[in-house]
Amino acid sequence: LLYPPDPGSVKVSTIGGNVAENAGGLRAGKYGVTRNYLMQLEAISPTGEEFKSGAKTHKCVAGYDLVSLMCGSEGTLGVITKVTLRLTVLPKFRNTMTATFADASDAGRAVANIITAGLVPATLEIIDNVTLRTIEDFAKLGLPIDAGAMVLAEFDGLSKAAVDEEGTTAAHILQTSGALDVTVACDASERDRIWQARRSALAALSRAKPTSILEDVTVPLPKLAEMIAIVQRIAAENNVIIGTFGHAGDGNLHPTVLTDERDEEEMARAERAIEQLFEAALELGGTLSGEHGIGFTKAPFLKRELGAGSLEIMRRIKRALDPNNILNPGKFV
Amino acid sequence: LLYPPDPGSVKVSTIGGNVAENAGGLRAGKYGVTRNYLMQLEAISPTGEEFKSGAKTHKCVAGYDLVSLMCGSEGTLGVITKVTLRLTVLPKFRNTMTATFADASDAGRAVANIITAGLVPATLEIIDNVTLRTIEDFAKLGLPIDAGAMVLAEFDGLSKAAVDEEGTTAAHILQTSGALDVTVACDASERDRIWQARRSALAALSRAKPTSILEDVTVPLPKLAEMIAIVQRIAAENNVIIGTFGHAGDGNLHPTVLTDERDEEEMARAERAIEQLFEAALELGGTLSGEHGIGFTKAPFLKRELGAGSLEIMRRIKRALDPNNILNPGKFV
Repeated sequence: LLYPPDPGSVKVSTIGGNVAENAGGLRAGKYGVTRNYLMQLEAISPTGEEFKSGAKTHKCVAGYDLVSLMCGSEGTLGVITKVTLRLTVLPKFRNTMTATFADASDAGRAVANIITAGLVPATLEIIDNVTLRTIEDFAKLGLPIDAGAMVLAEFDGLSKAAVDEEGTTAAHILQTSGALDVTVACDASERDRIWQARRSALAALSRAKPTSILEDVTVPLPKLAEMIAIVQRIAAENNVIIGTFGHAGDGNLHPTVLTDERDEEEMARAERAIEQLFEAALELGGTLSGEHGIGFTKAPFLKRELGAGSLEIMRRIKRALDPNNILNPGKFV
Repeated sequence: LLYPPDPGSVKVSTIGGNVAENAGGLRAGKYGVTRNYLMQLEAISPTGEEFKSGAKTHKCVAGYDLVSLMCGSEGTLGVITKVTLRLTVLPKFRNTMTATFADASDAGRAVANIITAGLVPATLEIIDNVTLRTIEDFAKLGLPIDAGAMVLAEFDGLSKAAVDEEGTTAAHILQTSGALDVTVACDASERDRIWQARRSALAALSRAKPTSILEDVTVPLPKLAEMIAIVQRIAAENNVIIGTFGHAGDGNLHPTVLTDERDEEEMARAERAIEQLFEAALELGGTLSGEHGIGFTKAPFLKRELGAGSLEIMRRIKRALDPNNILNPGKFV
């Protein structure tokens, strides 16, 4: 059996944290996020009430969905004490491929074409040139460091015929969407090398400069290529280095600003760039956060996304459950 | 493209009602319920605030999940004004089959065996003998009225090979689980006849006696056969007619008590039977409602399922959003 949520931080993250954050990860396009695997949740409210929600059944509509309210609440509404998770069947077959593109926006368009064609990849990732070079410096995997971006796709399932069919169709779409080359992994070791590259992205970027600021902007898929181009323009205009990778199939990019917090002038440019990233994502109909949450740093921008009425409703819920404001005060609500 | 939620009440139900109820239906085992297709929701609170939640993106963790809080809240927290729904790819191939069993509990075990084997049917339904006979009286479809129960299964997908493979495996499991016979639909008209039978169930039962009370007990799948046997025992012990059909693959049964509200003595027996159904579902680790909600009639039983702390948290949320208690007062909260 398989527990599908697969956050990039899998080595350090805990189930409790995943639930409080509604963690996403590399398999969210096909398999969904943490919320989709939460059947039942037990918690203690800030005023000491034990409560639970959900059931050990496939469906449950017994009262308000406190499972979803707690999931992604960032520790502001209660202490989660127990969760019952749903597992799914382990896929038997996998088909993994990479494609390189001269331009990162072309890669974004190819990703959108794959999804629009009705394919459902288990994973569909992007790594831009800055990130490719940084990973290669760090891990020496023989990556195509001259490519504008690399797309990584994996199909999985219980039927070999279906997985092969999906893979063949995807490879064809990547080629006709302007890929410089498409390489299908021949065995498990080639597949492992591909995912090692992807999983090294954040660690590599974090070592490249003293301060790395990982962002999480997410846009509707038809806007992905435009968002990628905007990230590149924002990096150039603010003279900062941004390495972009992420769950492209979900419209979810992780532009990572590489800077040095001791350099006040550079930090000011970095912060301006990040604000511009938020603005752009919202202008394209996206969200401030696909999977990392709002926390402290994005709190000032939340009103722009949701409006004053939504913040008021969230504050009322927070006050109703935590009248003394003892759990994570100051976080977004 | 396909909007997968497919409530049995599809001819009369509205999207707003589906969202307020988190409607399920015949495809929920593979495709999930209304909540799984809700990307963004706008609403007006009972005190007049406009609010929204979610995004037009595949994932969103911007503040509390008010989408899920509103979905299934049964009209108690606000008036839903706008929803953005996610569509999925229309499956190209379908494989539909029926199997008859001497005993309804055997049918329940066969259903559990199909899911345990890792198969993911688009639809996996059960119709018991009482319901089969009632449908046949009503619709003259040539149903096997001597069978203890009939199982209806449909597999769908984009790959013919995969759908055929799943269908063959399922047919084999049904046979080795004690089916009297397994019949695979050869063409669209046979398939339509199967689903017409299933979709006639509630209408047929509703015509059979002056009053029909449709229930919605849901148990973990390994307990399904036991729950079916308990429903039959409760019917016999209280001398009431109960026709059972439902989304067996979800552990969700709709035992429908056939009675006459003008007959006070019979109604008392019917109500006792329904209480016993609730008790049994909870004792087996199930829930009072898989997809119909709590409403007024199940409100007295909700504390037994969730405990006093959960009801207190729900009441605080209700008071925080609706201090004057103007929206659906008296419903479960």
